Amino acid sequence: MRVQLDETAAFLKERDDFLILCHQSPDGDTMGSAFALYFALLQLGKRAQIACADGFPERFRLCPLPEFAGFEPQTVVAVDVADSKLLGAAMISYADRVALCIDHHPTNTHYAKRLLLSERAAATCEIVYHLLGVLGTDITPLIASFLYMGISTDTGCFKFSNTTAETHLAAAELMKLGADYLSINVRFFDTKSKGRLLVERQALESIRFFFAERCALMVISRKMITTSGADESELDGVSAIPRQIEGVQVGVTLREREDGKFKVSVRTGESVDASKICKLLGGGGHMRASGCVVDGSCETAVQKIVQAVADSTGWNGD
Amino acid sequence: MRVQLDETAAFLKERDDFLILCHQSPDGDTMGSAFALYFALLQLGKRAQIACADGFPERFRLCPLPEFAGFEPQTVVAVDVADSKLLGAAMISYADRVALCIDHHPTNTHYAKRLLLSERAAATCEIVYHLLGVLGTDITPLIASFLYMGISTDTGCFKFSNTTAETHLAAAELMKLGADYLSINVRFFDTKSKGRLLVERQALESIRFFFAERCALMVISRKMITTSGADESELDGVSAIPRQIEGVQVGVTLREREDGKFKVSVRTGESVDASKICKLLGGGGHMRASGCVVDGSCETAVQKIVQAVADSTGWNGD
Repeated sequence: MRVQLDETAAFLKERDDFLILCHQSPDGDTMGSAFALYFALLQLGKRAQIACADGFPERFRLCPLPEFAGFEPQTVVAVDVADSKLLGAAMISYADRVALCIDHHPTNTHYAKRLLLSERAAATCEIVYHLLGVLGTDITPLIASFLYMGISTDTGCFKFSNTTAETHLAAAELMKLGADYLSINVRFFDTKSKGRLLVERQALESIRFFFAERCALMVISRKMITTSGADESELDGVSAIPRQIEGVQVGVTLREREDGKFKVSVRTGESVDASKICKLLGGGGHMRASGCVVDGSCETAVQKIVQAVADSTGWNGD
Repeated sequence: MRVQLDETAAFLKERDDFLILCHQSPDGDTMGSAFALYFALLQLGKRAQIACADGFPERFRLCPLPEFAGFEPQTVVAVDVADSKLLGAAMISYADRVALCIDHHPTNTHYAKRLLLSERAAATCEIVYHLLGVLGTDITPLIASFLYMGISTDTGCFKFSNTTAETHLAAAELMKLGADYLSINVRFFDTKSKGRLLVERQALESIRFFFAERCALMVISRKMITTSGADESELDGVSAIPRQIEGVQVGVTLREREDGKFKVSVRTGESVDASKICKLLGGGGHMRASGCVVDGSCETAVQKIVQAVADSTGWNGD
């Protein structure tokens, strides 16, 4: 059942003993939403705890991790979780017990009893910001920081096409309320781990062009990852690189998985449908960003992808 | 003489036959300010033209270049020009004739007869946005786009520390007024020229660490620049890279000039004063970003810089 902000606020006031669930492989938006909501619920005198199948990565901690009081959850809330499968193995037992989901993904599967969904919102944190306004809880500097973290990370610091005027208005308010935006911006948009740098350096070396430079293809091998010491989370966003090259319409990144298969990410400009290319190889996704998995040697995988690009676009030659 | 928004608006309404001057090596803010003001003046029935010592780079054009009517300028306005020297050789003859300067640089030398200066503004375009509000001219989608271009480029898309709540509020309004923010974001923040990519690839290879990885040093040689085909403007921001590496407090970039000397850029984290390092080598600048010029072979230049870092910070060893 779709619910609105006021119904959601009434529901939260009525219930107690909350368990707030994040999605697996957590990002700034699911973590920011969970912590902002957590601290707001405490203000209302409620008991609450947060859980995530993959824990609480250091990167998203803006305060010491609270010691969540031990109690049996009565009200399960999922934030930024588009599909109950995304709760992850460790939390999947709650899949049928989600009383409220707050989300901004148009692909939400409506698994929760109540769904506060705003597809126009750039981030779930943008919705939580408005929800706290209706709840009447105080947006402390810490809460403002968590909300700013979710909004800025989900929009690539106000760069991606999901950014709206409303997003900027929310950011302005959160900054006025004391969000520590400077250190958040430095942490997420102005810092690269050494491992990431080493992978990027080798990955840039691997870039090859096809179809009169309309397609750029980059390979990230297991060897690059292991020798650099980078962990997977440090490679976020790396697959955006080939498409960013001027003139490139199709950017392809092959990332070798531990099982030797290649995870393929395809990013396209306006004139090419990425999902069409990936469907030819058993994958899928969105118009501008899609993926698939390809096996065989690296060279075989490259050939398969290049063929799929040719078949899908009608391009030929080098 | 410092002037306020209302005095500036009154002045613009009173005068005619404007020449709007940009600074040399133009950026998005000086170009955005000039074009926004130009179109606003036309709305007031004024004659106006824009000039820049280095012309109008393709990158900053959001509309076909207007054919500036041939008339003898009566009122010279400089936008985003902190010092009359920055008008550049081709425009320096106007240095003593600047009737109004609109600027946000705290270092403005007060060379103009009237100075509308707001040091708190993230960009001159942020000031021009408020000025057009006082002037009462219509902020068309094209004007909004020019203003958004200046604000977003001067803040690294709302990432840099000059960004304020006011900056986000201005961005929100400009988006509502029809600024073509998506294509501007793609153009400036999601596109890399092939030349830039080739230089970056080699420059990343050159990175060396000193002082227990607290200092990272990158070299961009003439050979890298010439073989890549990159022009200087494509290398904007490249010197931010070494400091972005996690744990690095001093990031140094040596860029070989055509005369064989090295232009050195030093970027620092909070604990180190970049200007102190550069002063030891005859340069200077700000706390977080400074520069100097060093001659000799590349290795000699590296040694000089590393020594200056050691002398300035007290660090030693590798």
